[in-house]
Amino acid sequence: MRMVDLICKKRDGHELTDEEIRFWISEYVKDSVPDYQSSAMNMAILFRGMNKREIATLTDAMEHSGTVIDLSAIEGIKVDKHSTGGVGDKTTLVLAPMVAAVGAKVAKMSGRGLGHTGGTLDKLESIPGLSISKSEQEMINQVNKIGLAVIGQTRSLVPADKKLYALRDVTGTVESIPLIASSVMSKKLASGTDAILLDVTVGNGAFMKNLETARELSKTMVEIGKSLNRDTKAIISDMNEPLGLAVGNSLEVKEAIMSLHGNGPDDLMELCYSAGSIMLTQAKLCKNRDEARKKLEEVIKNGEAFNKFLLMVKEQGGDISYIEHPEKFEISKNIIEIKSKQSGYVKKCEALDIGVSAMKLGAGRETIEDIIDMSAGIILNKKVGSYVNIGDTLCTVYTNKDNVDDVLKDIENAYEITKEKIEPIKVIKEVIE
Amino acid sequence: MRMVDLICKKRDGHELTDEEIRFWISEYVKDSVPDYQSSAMNMAILFRGMNKREIATLTDAMEHSGTVIDLSAIEGIKVDKHSTGGVGDKTTLVLAPMVAAVGAKVAKMSGRGLGHTGGTLDKLESIPGLSISKSEQEMINQVNKIGLAVIGQTRSLVPADKKLYALRDVTGTVESIPLIASSVMSKKLASGTDAILLDVTVGNGAFMKNLETARELSKTMVEIGKSLNRDTKAIISDMNEPLGLAVGNSLEVKEAIMSLHGNGPDDLMELCYSAGSIMLTQAKLCKNRDEARKKLEEVIKNGEAFNKFLLMVKEQGGDISYIEHPEKFEISKNIIEIKSKQSGYVKKCEALDIGVSAMKLGAGRETIEDIIDMSAGIILNKKVGSYVNIGDTLCTVYTNKDNVDDVLKDIENAYEITKEKIEPIKVIKEVIE
Repeated sequence: MRMVDLICKKRDGHELTDEEIRFWISEYVKDSVPDYQSSAMNMAILFRGMNKREIATLTDAMEHSGTVIDLSAIEGIKVDKHSTGGVGDKTTLVLAPMVAAVGAKVAKMSGRGLGHTGGTLDKLESIPGLSISKSEQEMINQVNKIGLAVIGQTRSLVPADKKLYALRDVTGTVESIPLIASSVMSKKLASGTDAILLDVTVGNGAFMKNLETARELSKTMVEIGKSLNRDTKAIISDMNEPLGLAVGNSLEVKEAIMSLHGNGPDDLMELCYSAGSIMLTQAKLCKNRDEARKKLEEVIKNGEAFNKFLLMVKEQGGDISYIEHPEKFEISKNIIEIKSKQSGYVKKCEALDIGVSAMKLGAGRETIEDIIDMSAGIILNKKVGSYVNIGDTLCTVYTNKDNVDDVLKDIENAYEITKEKIEPIKVIKEVIE
Repeated sequence: MRMVDLICKKRDGHELTDEEIRFWISEYVKDSVPDYQSSAMNMAILFRGMNKREIATLTDAMEHSGTVIDLSAIEGIKVDKHSTGGVGDKTTLVLAPMVAAVGAKVAKMSGRGLGHTGGTLDKLESIPGLSISKSEQEMINQVNKIGLAVIGQTRSLVPADKKLYALRDVTGTVESIPLIASSVMSKKLASGTDAILLDVTVGNGAFMKNLETARELSKTMVEIGKSLNRDTKAIISDMNEPLGLAVGNSLEVKEAIMSLHGNGPDDLMELCYSAGSIMLTQAKLCKNRDEARKKLEEVIKNGEAFNKFLLMVKEQGGDISYIEHPEKFEISKNIIEIKSKQSGYVKKCEALDIGVSAMKLGAGRETIEDIIDMSAGIILNKKVGSYVNIGDTLCTVYTNKDNVDDVLKDIENAYEITKEKIEPIKVIKEVIE
């Protein structure tokens, strides 16, 4: 089999056989197929697409390109949630303890942030002492003990995706449904979970810019999961404005703690309740989503969800005094309020601009080498649908950097104020199952 | 400027600016843009195409990526012919001496064969002693002395094309009109000629499989030439069956010698007369093509064309006794006649099959490292339109290899015999100017 023939076949719009797809991935991981052939193949796939069988095989080949985690030592149905990335997305920090408090088993491997989207691992590491480096066995032991663990991906998980993703990033082939779907699903499948809930974000701050492509991606991933015998569902959620009010690592952890105490922003809580009730039915712990939602509201009210989070932080070596007294988190040197120059309703608070600005303030990485300032970020005082008077604070900027005038300008421009009445954005767009 | 942004721009169907195209080529030649980005760009170009301006700029950027030959020390209009490749294509060996005998100045840089198509350099090197390694100045001196030189491309000529072509070959991006056109034209332009006649072959043995794409490629190249101020025209010629009767290096040289003596096969002679009469008007040596054709017929009849070839061989160190007595060329060990099992008209004699078979007999290279057997090849005793009886010889196979039964089978299968009357193929399909 010659790689060039496979490229030509896909280029000409033909289906690749399972054998051909497995050849490509296995030889690529071994460096026997060079980057320049894989990049040509990726571009051909971007133009020609792949059918369901091809995508399922590609996902399976990638999943098995490295270690596949075996979670059978954990009793019960293991559930996992995965977001395609957003700004202010601290959902895992709230949702995972909530469903674990109801009895679900959550053994979650998370990622780091890059560019304008934050990563759950970075957020967790803003808690002094907390470690996300655990072995597979340590993760299993922790889940068996407290029902919950959130750790970093082991290096040996899905090496094909690591190579392919880095290549796609520099060759203009990120935006391909078959390639995105197989990248996400191969990692979820390799991490050993039984049931998967995907949170596919859509909007200017997400990979998927419109509902149509978000729906296509969701359906594609749900189909992959089903064809590989995993119970897979997807929520499509808004990412035109940031999720919740806080953007930035320790700022988001503090918002997560408030949310676990029952004082979370409406959109974040709605996403956690909706996602959690689907996950609890996937875990067969509840008969239906209404029952599940009631149980989730209960564990927020009675403090069990917060307690679960506290336990996890403790198990992973974190200083729980920060969780009990969030005012202990270091606060950045400079705190700047951005005031509205107009009165009216907030029409836009662009997630992409806010995310990029937070990154520039120190909250994120432009390149993998960058070091994060855990205290930097933005608190949104107003979101879409809010009414503002002239001089009202739109948002509050936290940073240890000094010359940030350009960033402040960008943040101001992320807001659009209008005279007409604007309704708040509904966070849940659709459920695909 | 970031290469990934240029890839995305072309991928999304937008035009690249001149600056962007020059950035790509200059950085690629310096290895600052890696192969994996160029291969993604090539595939995006294959799908999205390029407009006239983009193709002209790409050609110009490639032409100037290395040495550009200056032929101004040769008086008069320098004319060159370039074929997009074929089987049995010994046109240069006949045509170049013909036009030089009428007074044209031909300073030609030629290429080697790869795969099923032969190369002029390999054919010339079947003449003992002949050297194709000459410096620019030696070539100029030879043309000033005898009006004619055919040498190998200097290494420093169009390095961008050398890199890009090798990459395209292994990444499924050979078949792109903008990439083929810029590759061919950048080499012709860099070799310093004033007027260019392109021979675009079409058919199963050529790059271009149908007349429509051959016409598109011809028009594209003629437009590039015009926009870069070189008189450029194109002939579209048939490559469904091999050109002439001989396929294989010294076999083709012997056919060229016969042709220069006035005993050439009809299709080869027709191509030489047609191409030559266009070249002589491009060189402004004749008022029109009819006058040019008469002069070409004259130099064949009076032996001046043959003489010019003899002079060139002598100037380039070749043993002219082989040209005066072609029976001196070594003949291969095994000579096998393939007989017809049917009676009727030859409907097909597939150039691709004959070319691949000749390569397998030793006449060509599968990889650049292969060494050619100069005496190996095939003589077609019958071509399309010939009538054959059962037992008539279809063709004669020359080889020094012993186990060639599979190849003989393929050669037999290259022929198709039918009961209906079949007309010979017309070699000249169209002239594009």
